[in-house]
Amino acid sequence: MKVTVNRKAHFNAAHRLYNCEWSDSRNADVFGKCANPNYHGHNYELIVAVTGEIHPDTGFVMDMKILKKIIREEIEDYFDHKNLNEEVPEFKTLNPTAENISVVIWNKLRSKIDLKSELSVTLYETPRNFVIYKGE
Amino acid sequence: MKVTVNRKAHFNAAHRLYNCEWSDSRNADVFGKCANPNYHGHNYELIVAVTGEIHPDTGFVMDMKILKKIIREEIEDYFDHKNLNEEVPEFKTLNPTAENISVVIWNKLRSKIDLKSELSVTLYETPRNFVIYKGE
Amino acid sequence: MKVTVNRKAHFNAAHRLYNCEWSDSRNADVFGKCANPNYHGHNYELIVAVTGEIHPDTGFVMDMKILKKIIREEIEDYFDHKNLNEEVPEFKTLNPTAENISVVIWNKLRSKIDLKSELSVTLYETPRNFVIYKGE
Amino acid sequence: MKVTVNRKAHFNAAHRLYNCEWSDSRNADVFGKCANPNYHGHNYELIVAVTGEIHPDTGFVMDMKILKKIIREEIEDYFDHKNLNEEVPEFKTLNPTAENISVVIWNKLRSKIDLKSELSVTLYETPRNFVIYKGE
Amino acid sequence: MKVTVNRKAHFNAAHRLYNCEWSDSRNADVFGKCANPNYHGHNYELIVAVTGEIHPDTGFVMDMKILKKIIREEIEDYFDHKNLNEEVPEFKTLNPTAENISVVIWNKLRSKIDLKSELSVTLYETPRNFVIYKGE
Amino acid sequence: MKVTVNRKAHFNAAHRLYNCEWSDSRNADVFGKCANPNYHGHNYELIVAVTGEIHPDTGFVMDMKILKKIIREEIEDYFDHKNLNEEVPEFKTLNPTAENISVVIWNKLRSKIDLKSELSVTLYETPRNFVIYKGE
Repeated sequence: MKVTVNRKAHFNAAHRLYNCEWSDSRNADVFGKCANPNYHGHNYELIVAVTGEIHPDTGFVMDMKILKKIIREEIEDYFDHKNLNEEVPEFKTLNPTAENISVVIWNKLRSKIDLKSELSVTLYETPRNFVIYKGE
Repeated sequence: MKVTVNRKAHFNAAHRLYNCEWSDSRNADVFGKCANPNYHGHNYELIVAVTGEIHPDTGFVMDMKILKKIIREEIEDYFDHKNLNEEVPEFKTLNPTAENISVVIWNKLRSKIDLKSELSVTLYETPRNFVIYKGE
Repeated sequence: MKVTVNRKAHFNAAHRLYNCEWSDSRNADVFGKCANPNYHGHNYELIVAVTGEIHPDTGFVMDMKILKKIIREEIEDYFDHKNLNEEVPEFKTLNPTAENISVVIWNKLRSKIDLKSELSVTLYETPRNFVIYKGE
Repeated sequence: MKVTVNRKAHFNAAHRLYNCEWSDSRNADVFGKCANPNYHGHNYELIVAVTGEIHPDTGFVMDMKILKKIIREEIEDYFDHKNLNEEVPEFKTLNPTAENISVVIWNKLRSKIDLKSELSVTLYETPRNFVIYKGE
Repeated sequence: MKVTVNRKAHFNAAHRLYNCEWSDSRNADVFGKCANPNYHGHNYELIVAVTGEIHPDTGFVMDMKILKKIIREEIEDYFDHKNLNEEVPEFKTLNPTAENISVVIWNKLRSKIDLKSELSVTLYETPRNFVIYKGE
Repeated sequence: MKVTVNRKAHFNAAHRLYNCEWSDSRNADVFGKCANPNYHGHNYELIVAVTGEIHPDTGFVMDMKILKKIIREEIEDYFDHKNLNEEVPEFKTLNPTAENISVVIWNKLRSKIDLKSELSVTLYETPRNFVIYKGE
């Protein structure tokens, strides 16, 4: 019996969309106001989903207290109240779109969660825009 | 790396459930108060999901500004503040259930979005009833 | 000790905005697409708030089971799946704006709830538009 | 054309996490405050998803009035305002984790819904923790 | 310039509605399934509102980090994962209705927050039932 | 009959909390990670409430299309995708706390809305922190 357990988390951060190999005017053309060099920001809402067998002793796929702790240490402490472009090494050259942030989060979590479980990450950039990455 | 990008939208419309090949009494029997000939209505909440590869230059699967514009032109302008039975050609003979509306929306969007991407439509008819169509 | 108890409810209905003393073109000018003669509709979300003293025997301001029953009988059964303009007598000549609907709801509930309690009605016409009426 | 129809429901219940083959101290170690012998409780939010072909006569995958009735009779009436450990037979020996509750709900619904349709259950234990079971 | 700052919090608890001066059958008559002697439970969502002048040096009415800490220590640690009737002294004889819980919370917070500020407590017992207490 | 009409809006922005008359270390002591010199950001959700008499001809307190336009021009276009400290003149010396932002928004809207109506502004900085300013 495979069940998916989901845990919500959140962090606030500043960013700008920017391809460092493009001119400023091309960045402005493609990314519009999201390319503002002074940054803007978001309340990112995150859902981490882990799919696996229910352990018969605990009734858990994964102890949510442990999942909550992993998300806090690996993701919230790492991204919260940060400037993604300036302060998060992964985005020194990678454009911090919601798509790319979801991949970075998935990669950071993958190494901390039992490889027998499947992992999926849903990231809300705004209440109307969100992305899903499943490592495929 | 395949990521799903999701965009929420909404429209308000009137409709009634009605099979034009049935008698009024059979419509009333099957559809209950939803068959009211004077119509009722809903705030439809829509989530459009596009799954594809992240483009390395932009970090986007699809520019959300473009997706937002397609949804506005193809769906919101077409359905918003309309009587679905009376004013939307697709529902002249097709019963405007949430299921059928989701298929009509999917078909209208499919022709506007890169065929290499998968498309999925989630439509909330009320906060407690919603449907999902993936073109399968 | 005065406490406010709140109960949420909902109903779906069709309506159009229309002043029956105006020409069709003036209605269209003022109310735009909301004046569509074929109607549109909404999922109305309602919050009924009753403020009064806590009864020492029950710990209740008002039994929520009774409030829920009053709302169902007076409001949900009366408005749900209806065409407000055509089927609700109060709106034969009164324009069914959210403001006017909230006043009609308040008046219908006021006669059913202990006059020693204050009554307030919040009505969401859409997730982004809502009104509040307190009988003042 | 396969569409998924979803219906939300809810129930309130008390429970404690407890493996009856373990000592109290091991239960306390593993389940923390969730093992409180005096119980705690939740507002469980449930989403039942049924995937099948749209019936051409009705435009329905499944009549939502019938799905709502099945959920009320099989799930809400069975779990609501109950102590899961003490009053729900399935949890006399099975630990009432969200994972196990979702499997019990799925099994109870499976026998009531057309076997040609796929069934999925999403259960929110809190606004931040939820599980999904698809019978796989 | 008086501004209201609001902070959301939550806790999960079991309770039953019970007037200890009444017979069991009268409790069952008045409180229905809420009187279940085996308890049921809720996810309580809490909003604490503090109204006061903006301090010109900080731009704060009250530092939200401090308000968050007071709520955690006084309310969340005190109520979370508890049986309100059995484990919270205030409810040994007081019926733990939402109304009475909101008054107990308000009284506990009042002594910790600057008396020059007004205090209001909103408590959701379910997504559809909530109460507000302002100490009046 | 006085009714309050409410309209929701939103904008995304970067900011840092900073008193320009204090040393960096005092700013860090008081504002913690909110003082990060590289900025962080939020999805600000705004509710604008206008209270007045229902106009008998329209059934409106205020045409929501006009209120929506005022909010877009005065607030969304002014704050959206901006760095509040660097790009919004009001915050060159004023600390952009939620409290101060709500006062700036209220002042900007006050001059555009009929003075016979009362005006209130609710601003969510995060889903758990929000402020209310009524011009008092």
